Amino acid sequence: MSFDYGQRHRHELDAASKIAKVFGVAEHRVVKIDLRQFGGSALTAAGIAVPKDRDEKQMAAGDIPITYVPARNTVFLALALAWAETIGAFDLYVGVNCVDYSGYPDCRPEFLRAFEATANLATRVGVEGTGHFRIRAPLLHMTKEQIICRGLALGVDYGLTHSCYDPTPEGLACGRCDSCRLRLDAFSRVGIPDPVRYVL
Amino acid sequence: MSFDYGQRHRHELDAASKIAKVFGVAEHRVVKIDLRQFGGSALTAAGIAVPKDRDEKQMAAGDIPITYVPARNTVFLALALAWAETIGAFDLYVGVNCVDYSGYPDCRPEFLRAFEATANLATRVGVEGTGHFRIRAPLLHMTKEQIICRGLALGVDYGLTHSCYDPTPEGLACGRCDSCRLRLDAFSRVGIPDPVRYVL
Repeated sequence: MSFDYGQRHRHELDAASKIAKVFGVAEHRVVKIDLRQFGGSALTAAGIAVPKDRDEKQMAAGDIPITYVPARNTVFLALALAWAETIGAFDLYVGVNCVDYSGYPDCRPEFLRAFEATANLATRVGVEGTGHFRIRAPLLHMTKEQIICRGLALGVDYGLTHSCYDPTPEGLACGRCDSCRLRLDAFSRVGIPDPVRYVL
Repeated sequence: MSFDYGQRHRHELDAASKIAKVFGVAEHRVVKIDLRQFGGSALTAAGIAVPKDRDEKQMAAGDIPITYVPARNTVFLALALAWAETIGAFDLYVGVNCVDYSGYPDCRPEFLRAFEATANLATRVGVEGTGHFRIRAPLLHMTKEQIICRGLALGVDYGLTHSCYDPTPEGLACGRCDSCRLRLDAFSRVGIPDPVRYVL
Protein backbone atom coordinates (compact mmCIF):
# COMPACT_ATOMS: atom_id res chain seq x y z
CA MET A 1 0.00 0.00 0.00
CA SER A 2 1.46 3.32 -1.08
CA PHE A 3 0.13 6.82 -0.67
CA ASP A 4 -0.10 9.47 -3.32
CA TYR A 5 -0.34 12.33 -0.82
CA GLY A 6 0.95 15.20 -2.89
CA GLN A 7 4.53 14.50 -1.84
CA ARG A 8 7.29 16.37 -3.61
CA HIS A 9 9.06 13.03 -4.11
CA ARG A 10 6.18 11.43 -5.99
CA HIS A 11 8.86 9.44 -7.76
CA GLU A 12 8.82 7.04 -4.78
CA LEU A 13 5.48 5.71 -6.06
CA ASP A 14 7.09 4.51 -9.30
CA ALA A 15 9.86 2.93 -7.26
CA ALA A 16 7.34 1.17 -4.99
CA SER A 17 5.44 -0.10 -7.98
CA LYS A 18 8.58 -1.52 -9.62
CA ILE A 19 9.66 -3.22 -6.40
CA ALA A 20 6.18 -4.64 -5.84
CA LYS A 21 6.36 -6.15 -9.32
CA VAL A 22 9.82 -7.65 -8.79
CA PHE A 23 8.74 -9.34 -5.56
CA GLY A 24 5.38 -10.42 -6.98
CA VAL A 25 3.18 -8.94 -4.26
CA ALA A 26 -0.47 -10.00 -4.44
CA GLU A 27 -1.61 -6.39 -4.86
CA HIS A 28 0.00 -2.98 -4.76
CA ARG A 29 -2.66 -0.43 -3.86
CA VAL A 30 -1.93 3.30 -4.27
CA VAL A 31 -4.30 5.44 -2.20
CA LYS A 32 -4.84 9.11 -3.02
CA ILE A 33 -5.07 11.51 -0.08
CA ASP A 34 -3.97 15.04 -0.80
CA LEU A 35 -2.11 16.34 2.25
CA ARG A 36 -1.12 19.51 0.36
CA GLN A 37 -4.51 20.88 1.39
CA PHE A 38 -3.09 21.13 4.92
CA GLY A 39 0.53 21.86 4.00
CA GLY A 40 2.83 22.71 6.89
CA SER A 41 5.73 20.60 5.59
CA ALA A 42 8.53 20.92 3.05
CA LEU A 43 7.29 17.66 1.52
CA THR A 44 3.74 18.89 0.84
CA ALA A 45 3.87 22.70 0.63
CA ALA A 46 5.37 24.13 -2.57
CA GLY A 47 6.45 27.29 -0.70
CA ILE A 48 8.60 25.48 1.90
CA ALA A 49 12.07 24.39 0.76
CA VAL A 50 13.62 21.03 1.63
CA PRO A 51 16.64 21.69 3.89
CA LYS A 52 19.95 20.75 2.28
CA ASP A 53 23.50 20.00 3.41
CA ARG A 54 22.68 19.64 7.09
CA ASP A 55 25.52 17.92 8.91
CA GLU A 56 25.24 14.97 11.28
CA LYS A 57 25.15 17.22 14.33
CA GLN A 58 22.23 19.23 12.93
CA MET A 59 20.34 16.07 12.00
CA ALA A 60 20.92 14.52 15.43
CA ALA A 61 19.99 17.69 17.35
CA GLY A 62 16.56 16.26 18.08
CA ASP A 63 14.47 19.12 16.75
CA ILE A 64 11.81 18.03 14.31
CA PRO A 65 12.74 19.15 10.79
CA ILE A 66 10.36 20.95 8.43
CA THR A 67 10.14 17.75 6.35
CA TYR A 68 7.88 16.34 9.07
CA VAL A 69 4.36 16.01 7.59
CA PRO A 70 1.73 16.67 10.29
CA ALA A 71 0.10 13.40 11.43
CA ARG A 72 1.11 11.68 8.20
CA ASN A 73 1.82 8.23 9.59
CA THR A 74 -1.41 8.35 11.61
CA VAL A 75 -3.30 9.02 8.38
CA PHE A 76 -1.40 6.25 6.56
CA LEU A 77 -1.98 3.69 9.32
CA ALA A 78 -5.66 4.66 9.64
CA LEU A 79 -6.15 3.99 5.91
CA ALA A 80 -4.16 0.77 6.13
CA LEU A 81 -6.39 -0.27 9.01
CA ALA A 82 -9.50 0.45 6.92
CA TRP A 83 -8.23 -1.80 4.14
CA ALA A 84 -6.98 -4.48 6.53
CA GLU A 85 -10.29 -4.70 8.35
CA THR A 86 -12.15 -4.99 5.05
CA ILE A 87 -10.06 -7.92 3.82
CA GLY A 88 -9.62 -9.60 7.22
CA ALA A 89 -5.87 -8.93 7.59
CA PHE A 90 -4.46 -8.28 11.06
CA ASP A 91 -0.79 -7.54 10.43
CA LEU A 92 0.08 -4.03 9.26
CA TYR A 93 3.70 -3.57 8.21
CA VAL A 94 5.25 -0.12 8.12
CA GLY A 95 8.81 0.86 7.22
CA VAL A 96 9.46 3.42 9.95
CA ASN A 97 12.82 3.56 11.65
CA CYS A 98 13.66 5.22 14.95
CA VAL A 99 17.46 4.93 14.90
CA ASP A 100 18.85 6.79 11.90
CA TYR A 101 15.69 8.82 11.64
CA SER A 102 15.17 12.54 11.43
CA GLY A 103 13.38 13.14 14.72
CA TYR A 104 9.85 12.43 13.46
CA PRO A 105 7.39 11.86 16.30
CA ASP A 106 5.40 9.31 14.29
CA CYS A 107 8.40 7.02 13.75
CA ARG A 108 8.74 6.20 17.45
CA PRO A 109 7.83 2.88 19.10
CA GLU A 110 5.52 4.62 21.61
CA PHE A 111 3.48 6.02 18.73
CA LEU A 112 3.20 2.60 17.08
CA ARG A 113 2.10 0.97 20.35
CA ALA A 114 -0.53 3.67 20.90
CA PHE A 115 -1.84 3.31 17.35
CA GLU A 116 -2.04 -0.47 17.77
CA ALA A 117 -4.14 -0.06 20.92
CA THR A 118 -6.39 2.41 19.09
CA ALA A 119 -6.77 0.05 16.12
CA ASN A 120 -8.00 -2.72 18.38
CA LEU A 121 -10.67 -0.46 19.90
CA ALA A 122 -11.66 1.31 16.67
CA THR A 123 -12.77 -1.76 14.77
CA ARG A 124 -15.06 -4.79 14.94
CA VAL A 125 -12.50 -6.73 16.99
CA GLY A 126 -12.83 -4.08 19.71
CA VAL A 127 -16.42 -5.22 20.26
CA GLU A 128 -16.40 -8.80 19.02
CA GLY A 129 -12.93 -9.74 20.28
CA THR A 130 -12.25 -12.06 17.35
CA GLY A 131 -8.76 -11.04 16.29
CA HIS A 132 -6.01 -8.63 17.17
CA PHE A 133 -4.33 -6.05 14.96
CA ARG A 134 -0.54 -5.78 15.12
CA ILE A 135 1.50 -2.88 13.82
CA ARG A 136 4.72 -4.48 12.61
CA ALA A 137 7.76 -2.28 12.05
CA PRO A 138 10.63 -4.67 11.30
CA LEU A 139 13.07 -1.82 10.52
CA LEU A 140 12.23 0.15 13.67
CA HIS A 141 15.36 -0.52 15.71
CA MET A 142 17.83 -1.24 12.91
CA THR A 143 20.54 1.14 11.80
CA LYS A 144 20.50 2.18 8.15
CA GLU A 145 23.59 -0.01 7.58
CA GLN A 146 21.79 -3.01 9.04
CA ILE A 147 18.80 -2.27 6.84
CA ILE A 148 20.98 -2.13 3.73
CA CYS A 149 22.67 -5.43 4.60
CA ARG A 150 19.39 -7.18 5.37
CA GLY A 151 17.99 -5.96 2.07
CA LEU A 152 21.03 -7.19 0.16
CA ALA A 153 20.67 -10.61 1.81
CA LEU A 154 17.02 -10.66 0.74
CA GLY A 155 17.82 -9.75 -2.86
CA VAL A 156 16.73 -6.11 -2.92
CA ASP A 157 17.98 -4.23 -5.98
CA TYR A 158 18.69 -0.85 -4.40
CA GLY A 159 18.85 0.64 -7.87
CA LEU A 160 15.05 0.38 -7.89
CA THR A 161 14.59 2.16 -4.57
CA HIS A 162 14.09 5.84 -3.86
CA SER A 163 14.81 7.90 -0.73
CA CYS A 164 15.32 11.52 -1.87
CA TYR A 165 12.88 14.17 -0.63
CA ASP A 166 13.57 16.50 -3.52
CA PRO A 167 14.38 14.63 -6.73
CA THR A 168 14.61 16.18 -10.18
CA PRO A 169 11.59 15.71 -12.46
CA GLU A 170 13.47 12.75 -13.99
CA GLY A 171 13.79 11.16 -10.56
CA LEU A 172 17.48 11.83 -9.91
CA ALA A 173 18.24 12.07 -6.18
CA CYS A 174 19.56 15.41 -4.93
CA GLY A 175 22.23 13.93 -2.65
CA ARG A 176 21.86 16.83 -0.24
CA CYS A 177 18.58 16.42 1.72
CA ASP A 178 18.58 14.60 5.07
CA SER A 179 17.19 11.47 3.48
CA CYS A 180 19.92 11.34 0.81
CA ARG A 181 22.65 12.08 3.35
CA LEU A 182 21.53 9.38 5.78
CA ARG A 183 21.34 6.93 2.89
CA LEU A 184 24.71 7.87 1.37
CA ASP A 185 26.42 7.77 4.77
CA ALA A 186 25.02 4.30 5.41
CA PHE A 187 26.10 2.96 2.02
CA SER A 188 29.55 4.37 2.55
CA ARG A 189 29.82 2.77 6.00
CA VAL A 190 28.69 -0.57 4.52
CA GLY A 191 31.39 -0.03 1.90
CA ILE A 192 29.38 -0.51 -1.26
CA PRO A 193 28.31 2.10 -3.81
CA ASP A 194 24.70 3.29 -3.78
CA PRO A 195 23.32 2.27 -7.18
CA VAL A 196 20.76 5.10 -7.20
CA ARG A 197 21.47 7.96 -9.62
CA TYR A 198 22.31 11.30 -8.02
CA VAL A 199 22.43 14.77 -9.54
CA LEU A 200 25.88 15.34 -8.09
CA MET B 1 -14.50 19.61 8.55
CA SER B 2 -16.57 17.21 6.49
CA PHE B 3 -15.54 14.15 4.54
CA ASP B 4 -16.51 13.30 1.01
CA TYR B 5 -15.70 9.62 1.40
CA GLY B 6 -17.93 8.12 -1.25
CA GLN B 7 -20.83 7.80 1.16
CA ARG B 8 -24.21 6.84 -0.19
CA HIS B 9 -25.68 9.77 1.74
CA ARG B 10 -23.50 12.39 0.09
CA HIS B 11 -26.42 14.73 0.69
CA GLU B 12 -25.09 15.22 4.24
CA LEU B 13 -22.29 17.35 2.77
CA ASP B 14 -24.79 19.89 1.41
CA ALA B 15 -26.51 19.89 4.80
CA ALA B 16 -23.18 20.46 6.60
CA SER B 17 -22.32 23.29 4.25
CA LYS B 18 -25.67 25.04 4.81
CA ILE B 19 -25.39 24.71 8.59
CA ALA B 20 -21.80 25.97 8.54
CA LYS B 21 -23.02 29.04 6.65
CA VAL B 22 -25.91 29.69 9.06
CA PHE B 23 -23.62 29.55 12.08
CA GLY B 24 -20.86 31.55 10.38
CA VAL B 25 -18.02 29.09 10.96
CA ALA B 26 -14.58 30.46 10.09
CA GLU B 27 -14.03 27.72 7.52
CA HIS B 28 -15.85 24.60 6.36
CA ARG B 29 -13.32 22.25 4.83
CA VAL B 30 -14.51 19.23 2.82
CA VAL B 31 -11.81 16.58 2.51
CA LYS B 32 -11.95 13.93 -0.22
CA ILE B 33 -10.95 10.40 0.74
CA ASP B 34 -12.59 7.67 -1.25
CA LEU B 35 -13.39 4.80 1.11
CA ARG B 36 -15.30 2.99 -1.67
CA GLN B 37 -11.92 1.65 -2.75
CA PHE B 38 -12.04 -0.56 0.36
CA GLY B 39 -15.81 -1.03 0.55
CA GLY B 40 -17.04 -3.51 3.15
CA SER B 41 -19.97 -1.34 4.25
CA ALA B 42 -23.50 -0.58 3.07
CA LEU B 43 -22.54 3.10 3.13
CA THR B 44 -19.60 2.77 0.74
CA ALA B 45 -20.17 -0.37 -1.36
CA ALA B 46 -22.82 -0.10 -4.08
CA GLY B 47 -23.53 -3.83 -3.89
CA ILE B 48 -24.42 -3.86 -0.15
CA ALA B 49 -27.94 -2.69 0.72
CA VAL B 50 -28.74 -0.45 3.69
CA PRO B 51 -30.85 -2.49 6.17
CA LYS B 52 -34.39 -1.18 6.53
CA ASP B 53 -37.21 -1.48 9.06
CA ARG B 54 -35.14 -2.98 11.85
CA ASP B 55 -36.97 -2.75 15.15
CA GLU B 56 -35.58 -1.43 18.41
CA LYS B 57 -34.67 -4.90 19.62
CA GLN B 58 -32.65 -5.62 16.46
CA MET B 59 -30.89 -2.25 16.70
CA ALA B 60 -30.07 -2.77 20.37
CA ALA B 61 -28.86 -6.36 19.91
CA GLY B 62 -25.28 -5.18 20.02
CA ASP B 63 -24.10 -6.71 16.79
CA ILE B 64 -22.34 -4.28 14.50
CA PRO B 65 -24.54 -3.51 11.50
CA ILE B 66 -23.34 -3.57 7.89
CA THR B 67 -23.53 0.24 7.86
CA TYR B 68 -20.32 0.26 9.92
CA VAL B 69 -17.53 1.65 7.70
CA PRO B 70 -14.21 -0.04 8.56
CA ALA B 71 -11.97 2.30 10.57
CA ARG B 72 -13.86 5.33 9.28
CA ASN B 73 -13.68 7.47 12.40
CA THR B 74 -9.99 6.65 12.80
CA VAL B 75 -9.42 7.94 9.26
CA PHE B 76 -11.54 11.06 9.95
CA LEU B 77 -9.78 11.86 13.22
CA ALA B 78 -6.35 11.25 11.68
CA LEU B 79 -7.10 13.79 8.95
CA ALA B 80 -8.57 16.22 11.48
CA LEU B 81 -5.37 15.83 13.49
CA ALA B 82 -3.29 16.63 10.40
CA TRP B 83 -5.21 19.84 9.83
CA ALA B 84 -5.28 20.75 13.53
CA GLU B 85 -1.53 20.34 13.91
CA THR B 86 -0.90 22.48 10.85
CA ILE B 87 -2.99 25.39 12.13
CA GLY B 88 -2.05 25.02 15.81
CA ALA B 89 -5.48 23.87 17.05
CA PHE B 90 -5.66 21.38 19.92
CA ASP B 91 -9.38 20.71 20.33
CA LEU B 92 -10.94 18.25 17.89
CA TYR B 93 -14.72 18.03 18.10
CA VAL B 94 -16.54 14.99 16.79
CA GLY B 95 -20.28 14.27 16.83
CA VAL B 96 -20.19 10.61 17.86
CA ASN B 97 -22.75 9.27 20.28
CA CYS B 98 -22.56 6.06 22.30
CA VAL B 99 -26.08 5.96 23.74
CA ASP B 100 -28.61 5.82 20.90
CA TYR B 101 -25.96 4.54 18.55
CA SER B 102 -25.94 1.55 16.29
CA GLY B 103 -23.17 -0.49 17.90
CA TYR B 104 -20.25 1.10 16.05
CA PRO B 105 -16.89 0.37 17.71
CA ASP B 106 -15.49 3.78 16.76
CA CYS B 107 -18.24 5.69 18.58
CA ARG B 108 -17.18 4.45 22.02
CA PRO B 109 -15.44 6.49 24.72
CA GLU B 110 -12.58 3.96 24.97
CA PHE B 111 -11.83 4.45 21.27
CA LEU B 112 -11.79 8.25 21.65
CA ARG B 113 -9.46 8.05 24.66
CA ALA B 114 -7.09 5.74 22.79
CA PHE B 115 -7.07 8.01 19.74
CA GLU B 116 -6.36 11.02 21.94
CA ALA B 117 -3.34 9.25 23.47
CA THR B 118 -2.14 8.33 19.98
CA ALA B 119 -2.58 11.92 18.75
CA ASN B 120 -0.36 13.22 21.53
CA LEU B 121 2.42 10.78 20.62
CA ALA B 122 2.03 11.06 16.82
CA THR B 123 2.72 14.77 16.54
CA ARG B 124 5.22 17.49 17.44
CA VAL B 125 3.76 17.81 20.93
CA GLY B 126 4.74 14.19 21.59
CA VAL B 127 8.39 15.23 21.36
CA GLU B 128 8.30 18.92 22.24
CA GLY B 129 5.60 18.72 24.93
CA THR B 130 4.18 22.15 24.08
CA GLY B 131 0.45 21.47 23.92
CA HIS B 132 -2.05 18.67 24.33
CA PHE B 133 -4.65 17.45 21.86
CA ARG B 134 -8.14 16.77 23.15
CA ILE B 135 -10.78 14.77 21.35
CA ARG B 136 -14.05 16.42 22.36
CA ALA B 137 -17.30 14.55 21.86
CA PRO B 138 -19.99 16.66 23.50
CA LEU B 139 -22.82 14.41 22.27
CA LEU B 140 -21.15 11.19 23.42
CA HIS B 141 -23.29 10.38 26.46
CA MET B 142 -26.49 12.20 25.49
CA THR B 143 -29.66 10.46 24.34
CA LYS B 144 -30.99 11.49 20.94
CA GLU B 145 -33.84 13.34 22.71
CA GLN B 146 -31.34 15.31 24.76
CA ILE B 147 -29.40 16.12 21.62
CA ILE B 148 -32.53 17.39 19.88
CA CYS B 149 -33.46 19.57 22.85
CA ARG B 150 -29.97 20.99 23.22
CA GLY B 151 -29.93 21.81 19.53
CA LEU B 152 -33.29 23.54 19.72
CA ALA B 153 -32.03 25.62 22.65
CA LEU B 154 -28.99 26.58 20.57
CA GLY B 155 -31.08 27.61 17.57
CA VAL B 156 -30.47 24.65 15.26
CA ASP B 157 -32.88 24.51 12.33
CA TYR B 158 -33.35 20.75 12.05
CA GLY B 159 -34.86 21.30 8.62
CA LEU B 160 -31.29 21.88 7.42
CA THR B 161 -29.89 18.69 8.93
CA HIS B 162 -29.56 15.24 7.41
CA SER B 163 -29.34 11.80 9.05
CA CYS B 164 -30.58 9.27 6.47
CA TYR B 165 -28.16 6.61 5.21
CA ASP B 166 -30.05 6.06 1.99
CA PRO B 167 -31.71 9.24 0.72
CA THR B 168 -33.28 9.68 -2.70
CA PRO B 169 -31.21 11.54 -5.30
CA GLU B 170 -33.19 14.67 -4.31
CA GLY B 171 -32.14 14.21 -0.68
CA LEU B 172 -35.42 12.95 0.76
CA ALA B 173 -34.86 10.74 3.82
CA CYS B 174 -35.99 7.12 3.53
CA GLY B 175 -37.53 6.93 7.01
CA ARG B 176 -36.63 3.25 7.26
CA CYS B 177 -32.88 2.92 7.86
CA ASP B 178 -31.51 2.74 11.44
CA SER B 179 -30.46 6.37 11.32
CA CYS B 180 -33.92 7.58 10.26
CA ARG B 181 -35.68 5.36 12.79
CA LEU B 182 -33.50 6.50 15.70
CA ARG B 183 -34.08 10.10 14.66
CA LEU B 184 -37.84 9.75 14.15
CA ASP B 185 -38.26 7.90 17.46
CA ALA B 186 -36.36 10.64 19.27
CA PHE B 187 -38.40 13.45 17.69
CA SER B 188 -41.59 11.63 18.58
CA ARG B 189 -40.47 11.18 22.19
CA VAL B 190 -39.59 14.87 22.37
CA GLY B 191 -43.06 15.52 20.97
CA ILE B 192 -42.26 17.78 18.05
CA PRO B 193 -42.39 16.99 14.34
CA ASP B 194 -39.14 16.30 12.48
CA PRO B 195 -38.95 19.08 9.87
CA VAL B 196 -36.85 16.95 7.50
CA ARG B 197 -38.66 15.70 4.38
CA TYR B 198 -39.22 11.95 4.19
CA VAL B 199 -40.20 9.78 1.25
CA LEU B 200 -42.99 8.22 3.31
